Amino acid sequence: MNGAESLVRTLLNAEVSVCFANPGTSEMHFVSALDRVEGVRCILGLFEGVVTGAADGYYRVAGKPAATLLHLGPGLGNGLANLHNAKKARSGIVNVVGEHAGYHIQYDAPLTADIEGVARPMSDWVKTSRSSKTIASDGALAVAAARKAPGQIATLILPADTAWGEADAVAAALPVAERLSVTKHCVQQGAKALEQGASTMLLLGNVALRGKALEWAGRIAAKTGCQLMSEYNNARMERGAGRVPVRQLPFVVDNALALLKDITHLVLVGAKSPVSFFAYPGKPSVLVSEACEVITVAKAEEDLESALQALAIELGAVDCLPLCNAPTYDVPLPTGPVTLDGLGVLFNVLIPDNAIVIDEAVTSGRAFAAATMGARPHDWLNIMGGSIGWGLAASVGAAIAAPDRKVIALEGDGSALYTQQALWTMARENLDITIVIFANRAYKILLGELNNVGGGQPGRNAMDMLTLDRPSVDWVSIAKGYGVQSGRAQTLDELALQFKRGLAHHGPYLIELVM
Amino acid sequence: MNGAESLVRTLLNAEVSVCFANPGTSEMHFVSALDRVEGVRCILGLFEGVVTGAADGYYRVAGKPAATLLHLGPGLGNGLANLHNAKKARSGIVNVVGEHAGYHIQYDAPLTADIEGVARPMSDWVKTSRSSKTIASDGALAVAAARKAPGQIATLILPADTAWGEADAVAAALPVAERLSVTKHCVQQGAKALEQGASTMLLLGNVALRGKALEWAGRIAAKTGCQLMSEYNNARMERGAGRVPVRQLPFVVDNALALLKDITHLVLVGAKSPVSFFAYPGKPSVLVSEACEVITVAKAEEDLESALQALAIELGAVDCLPLCNAPTYDVPLPTGPVTLDGLGVLFNVLIPDNAIVIDEAVTSGRAFAAATMGARPHDWLNIMGGSIGWGLAASVGAAIAAPDRKVIALEGDGSALYTQQALWTMARENLDITIVIFANRAYKILLGELNNVGGGQPGRNAMDMLTLDRPSVDWVSIAKGYGVQSGRAQTLDELALQFKRGLAHHGPYLIELVM
Repeated sequence: MNGAESLVRTLLNAEVSVCFANPGTSEMHFVSALDRVEGVRCILGLFEGVVTGAADGYYRVAGKPAATLLHLGPGLGNGLANLHNAKKARSGIVNVVGEHAGYHIQYDAPLTADIEGVARPMSDWVKTSRSSKTIASDGALAVAAARKAPGQIATLILPADTAWGEADAVAAALPVAERLSVTKHCVQQGAKALEQGASTMLLLGNVALRGKALEWAGRIAAKTGCQLMSEYNNARMERGAGRVPVRQLPFVVDNALALLKDITHLVLVGAKSPVSFFAYPGKPSVLVSEACEVITVAKAEEDLESALQALAIELGAVDCLPLCNAPTYDVPLPTGPVTLDGLGVLFNVLIPDNAIVIDEAVTSGRAFAAATMGARPHDWLNIMGGSIGWGLAASVGAAIAAPDRKVIALEGDGSALYTQQALWTMARENLDITIVIFANRAYKILLGELNNVGGGQPGRNAMDMLTLDRPSVDWVSIAKGYGVQSGRAQTLDELALQFKRGLAHHGPYLIELVM
Repeated sequence: MNGAESLVRTLLNAEVSVCFANPGTSEMHFVSALDRVEGVRCILGLFEGVVTGAADGYYRVAGKPAATLLHLGPGLGNGLANLHNAKKARSGIVNVVGEHAGYHIQYDAPLTADIEGVARPMSDWVKTSRSSKTIASDGALAVAAARKAPGQIATLILPADTAWGEADAVAAALPVAERLSVTKHCVQQGAKALEQGASTMLLLGNVALRGKALEWAGRIAAKTGCQLMSEYNNARMERGAGRVPVRQLPFVVDNALALLKDITHLVLVGAKSPVSFFAYPGKPSVLVSEACEVITVAKAEEDLESALQALAIELGAVDCLPLCNAPTYDVPLPTGPVTLDGLGVLFNVLIPDNAIVIDEAVTSGRAFAAATMGARPHDWLNIMGGSIGWGLAASVGAAIAAPDRKVIALEGDGSALYTQQALWTMARENLDITIVIFANRAYKILLGELNNVGGGQPGRNAMDMLTLDRPSVDWVSIAKGYGVQSGRAQTLDELALQFKRGLAHHGPYLIELVM
């Protein structure tokens, strides 16, 4: 058994059974081991950003890490942006990155680079394995790091000779550390603040937006009348009819300031105190008022469900019925020209039961969150690191993790263009994903931002850098190029027709919505 | 005048007049300054790998750096792979990377990352500007670093408040350091070795493969009978009929070993002593024999033309006629099924005068170099860092640098899929590029490498990771999607027809060659 095989068997021992991959020569022994050992599903991405984004989507839905297989420093480099998004989502991923054989690095061959240096900014854990004898135990450490709550990016660098040399043994899975409990003092402080009622906000993040944790939060809000909100973007929210209503903080600084200005107590469970996405001249970074008291009951890595349960007990809210969204989907479909509000209503009606919605719609999606609170129950995943080019890739991972659920990818055209190679993987694996491309032919958010920072009216150079027309991308042809069925819509009526067609089709279906 | 404007004016002072860009909110003041100040041509890439690859191609043809404009750590991350290729090519590039305003970084907003950490592995020079007062002088330092022979990757990080704050002044261009002269001793050692004749190899790299430097080398070879070769890949070679014949070292280790085994003296001018691209079990990294004496006359950063002239003087070769390729292009076009040799002959006949050939054909291109030695005079650019996804992007930069020359991009399908967004920039700027996609529907090199490393016959997982069929990418549709005219060829006859059509068309034209 060589080192590569000992690593594959170790990953399997630790329940890592999916590998999103884009390998090269230095990873060939690992590829060969994946061939010999049964049990790992290997999924090719034509670009590494697809690979790492898929691993992020997979973790958020499966709740356990996938492996990635990447080729040396530049291959890892291509995957960095979506590792950044995954790290900010607190997703767990085990990156296996090939390296030249140890003795070969000194010769500075063309692909030689400082791989640890490339890995470090977007990883929580980095290790270069030094021998075929240690690669299994290093692999077990990597998985344990990736699984550490709430999830970490672990990057294991694999010199080719550690892969092809003889191994001693396979490593057993290491125990996964439990989430830390919060202190009684934190809970009492939080409860005291929540008793203030409507001027208190309970801000949820990470797994507090799911399952029983969310129900406890709904009981607390029912009992105290506090405001129940989440951060602007969230790794995965369980929402829709019958679930607890949680509004999201707005992106636009002035709107967030207006919403937060009268909040006297902010109670954090899995969330961070809100800050603006970017800095703008003359506007604050911190969004709560100076008078607001911020109480951190639990950080994302702590036991959020128990923390919320403890709060509910402390507040006497255990027997309250949680707040609950009434169904809103049983209304007529909107018709006519495309408007942002019309899109919100359309998705409110059409999101199917138990769907997974991947939201990278950026400006086109501003009305979706509020409009779909009472849609059929679904999961909603946001881009967490702000590096666009995440959604199509994340959809791949989500669909691999939940093959029986419909995935809906809502994509700005600018965003989708970064990693549109993901369409090919969807076609090859016949993933059940309906994609809507909001084709406004611009980085529309930036046209707004240019104004927000005081840049004034865009001139020729600015328009050249902020618009995507001349030529307009023909998404129907792009989809065809990658083997994905597709259609075009220009009105809400046409979109409804196309969207239903996508939902009825088992496999990927892309809709270009011309806006 | 704000900091951003002082930087734009400083770049212009230093003759940086092209900016390949993919900006975001934190770069909006820089975008705005590019609007107000006349003279910088801004070219949008839909993905940062296009931006950095274009800057590499631009430098190799224009001989001076372009700027790039990138959005924070993840945007730079997306550009890293082609920065790696550019660094290995010794190209000069000035990266301008936006950062959050200095006071905002502490809040760990979603896009916050260690940008210097991301930059360092693929940069020769990194600096974060600390104030709107210093940004101009930092910009001048960045350009000077980029221009330092033979070329460097300089990354200037620009916190948003240094862009929007008040500046004092514009900075003048700093003097560009001249290339260092080689010592008389090195020249004498080199000349002594070259006098050994056919058992000596003169190995050229970097600018030794161009202009007068190349002619001196041709005189030396004519005089001494030494073997004249270049590294396997080269940043830019001037070749074709009437120019000095320089063969390239082979990629395959056994072929390189066979070619080098009887070489007793290796004389390096701008090249490094050859090493294998990857390590393989049981094969050496160093390709020259143990008995071979290696003499470094000049490193890539030194004055290669003077070094070769000094060698020629020392050897009494000044009045020799340089070796010279006879024209070979006046032969019939090959017909029938596609073969690698047939492709070589076809390009030998059809490469137009003064063309710029971008070669990322990988396995499909193995016969091109030898077959085109006597084609019409042209420049040939190789991928230098081995990170595929370079060619289409580099073609953009080459075409911007030389609008009156035809650019020919020879692309493996696997390679082209990494950064195919470059097609859109070609369409928008109407760049005169004829692209041939060698569509063998596989990472064919890896199928060979799996065997080379002893991986045996590929099984299901390996085939899933190494082939690009199921579905086959339809390149004609992809091109249409990006607004690029295209055609398909399945035989050499059809390829010749399509290639002539591309050459006759002013603008981008893509040919899918089904292999």
